[in-house]
Amino acid sequence: MTGQGSADGGRRGEEVPSSDAGSSVRRSAFVLTASDRGAAGAREDSAGAAVEDRLTGLGFAVERAVVPDEQVGIEAAIREAAVRHLLVVTTGGTGLTPRDVTPQATLAVIDYAVPGLAEAMRAEGRQHTPMADLSRAVVGVRGHTLIVNLPGSPRGAIESLNAVVPVLDHALETLAGPFDHGSSSPEAGADGPASVAATAMPPSQPLPTPTDPVAGDPRVVAEPDEHE
Amino acid sequence: MTGQGSADGGRRGEEVPSSDAGSSVRRSAFVLTASDRGAAGAREDSAGAAVEDRLTGLGFAVERAVVPDEQVGIEAAIREAAVRHLLVVTTGGTGLTPRDVTPQATLAVIDYAVPGLAEAMRAEGRQHTPMADLSRAVVGVRGHTLIVNLPGSPRGAIESLNAVVPVLDHALETLAGPFDHGSSSPEAGADGPASVAATAMPPSQPLPTPTDPVAGDPRVVAEPDEHE
Amino acid sequence: MTGQGSADGGRRGEEVPSSDAGSSVRRSAFVLTASDRGAAGAREDSAGAAVEDRLTGLGFAVERAVVPDEQVGIEAAIREAAVRHLLVVTTGGTGLTPRDVTPQATLAVIDYAVPGLAEAMRAEGRQHTPMADLSRAVVGVRGHTLIVNLPGSPRGAIESLNAVVPVLDHALETLAGPFDHGSSSPEAGADGPASVAATAMPPSQPLPTPTDPVAGDPRVVAEPDEHE
Repeated sequence: MTGQGSADGGRRGEEVPSSDAGSSVRRSAFVLTASDRGAAGAREDSAGAAVEDRLTGLGFAVERAVVPDEQVGIEAAIREAAVRHLLVVTTGGTGLTPRDVTPQATLAVIDYAVPGLAEAMRAEGRQHTPMADLSRAVVGVRGHTLIVNLPGSPRGAIESLNAVVPVLDHALETLAGPFDHGSSSPEAGADGPASVAATAMPPSQPLPTPTDPVAGDPRVVAEPDEHE
Repeated sequence: MTGQGSADGGRRGEEVPSSDAGSSVRRSAFVLTASDRGAAGAREDSAGAAVEDRLTGLGFAVERAVVPDEQVGIEAAIREAAVRHLLVVTTGGTGLTPRDVTPQATLAVIDYAVPGLAEAMRAEGRQHTPMADLSRAVVGVRGHTLIVNLPGSPRGAIESLNAVVPVLDHALETLAGPFDHGSSSPEAGADGPASVAATAMPPSQPLPTPTDPVAGDPRVVAEPDEHE
Repeated sequence: MTGQGSADGGRRGEEVPSSDAGSSVRRSAFVLTASDRGAAGAREDSAGAAVEDRLTGLGFAVERAVVPDEQVGIEAAIREAAVRHLLVVTTGGTGLTPRDVTPQATLAVIDYAVPGLAEAMRAEGRQHTPMADLSRAVVGVRGHTLIVNLPGSPRGAIESLNAVVPVLDHALETLAGPFDHGSSSPEAGADGPASVAATAMPPSQPLPTPTDPVAGDPRVVAEPDEHE
């Protein structure tokens, strides 16, 4: 299993930038900031910038946008981004008030939640501050795309993001498909030499849906893994 | 951020009793015990009493009631209490059996859940006993009111409550509003010298709803904080 | 409370095999493996076998089946198993892809979730590998039956199962009922000398439903416990 053993000197996640270097197809991510002030131009989007920097460092080509804290607009932005990206990361709007609607917007557009990643972000955050537990961040899947909510502060956002970075590559490769658990080449497995290029998706590609999975890169075989 | 740094000698939560002393407006909480035997007068409500003591020590004026383990009655009691209090704490009815309906009642009346606080209570409880994981406690928001389920035993209830005490003041102040993330005075922020008196609500005040937020005390500006 | 104090030398969970020895009624469990390849006979069900071994060691009489990763079939298998067993454990189909549908199938057939047990499994797994957070495993209750999702790998499945073993006996005894929180014999409580035989259910017994609870063994009195 990827990165499980202590003898595993090279976790796949850390191989990404190098293995991706020189590839003509880069993987991409969308960073969406939910912020009334940010959308009005009254505040710099420092959290979005910090998340972009972190993802760029991980080898992603990043697009960014800022929208107000309005559920319908956030939903639309996530849906649109999920057509073109296999990773959509939001920042902001996860707090306690009725004006914080990013989790609700996310729940409305995902096919299913991945509660463990939200739990992991809060468990990690709790080591730094009990305030981390006030984040209502949701993580979920829409089609082939992983959607991750992060808090609205630069520090909170990066701490939360870092909590899921160790599984990010594996998650994206798994979601890239194919999804046939009955695949005839089980040995290729999740620990095989799959290229991360498989997680990139051309901008013009239509939205994949769970009922119409696209054929994934045959080099990436999503096998039920140790803990899935 | 409140209470984040190790150099933060005075967490807001611990300032409450003193800063609130002498205020003519006290903050208040409602403690609701779900217990068939308690409602029938066959058992003393020791958990409710323990929770009341703890909250009184934190500066809350506490009202208490005991209802049977009936979902409709618990829902009604929470709804009614949320009109008059910005904090409603239940104890009991979070266990495994069909007779334990407090979580279902809570889910039925909240506008949205705050999963991190429920996770934090169980993560803390797990340090003491694996039985803590059997609590199906829910934490959520209705209007401006935070609703927290606690287990039915005095010890379990207090351990769970203690797990959320570090964020309680910040949570209640945030929920007191205003909710305008586009506020023109961001510097007043959550770390500003806001008075906890703002979390009190006169008994006669009508139920605030998410679609009709009351104007909060301008001294309390709920900003997206580190982890929200 | 069972197993809470350090002075509690004999946790109930560890008494089970001996106290159950010689009983004519054994408790039982159903192990359901969701696996396209397993159902097609193309792969040995090593995870299911490992779970069976573990449960047999805990004193359960185990039945097993393998079904494809199809939601409707998994739902039907769980429903049918819950008629005859007070514990149904699934393995497989908890991963990220649309082909992993065990959590959805489980959510569709449970009366309510027990989030703490799913959180505990992932928190324990996280100590071994961050991949544990990718499991979308659900734990819930249907009638008197506890349903537990485990990951699809033998190692992941056993690690997750082990995380809930400390509370398994208490959970099953609580669910066996009776559910009357107003019971007149509170002292018999969860720490009383209840027989684990009460958690067994003859194969021909009709499906208990929450609205029609069967009368439990009077030796087992489910009291609200420390953390429930």
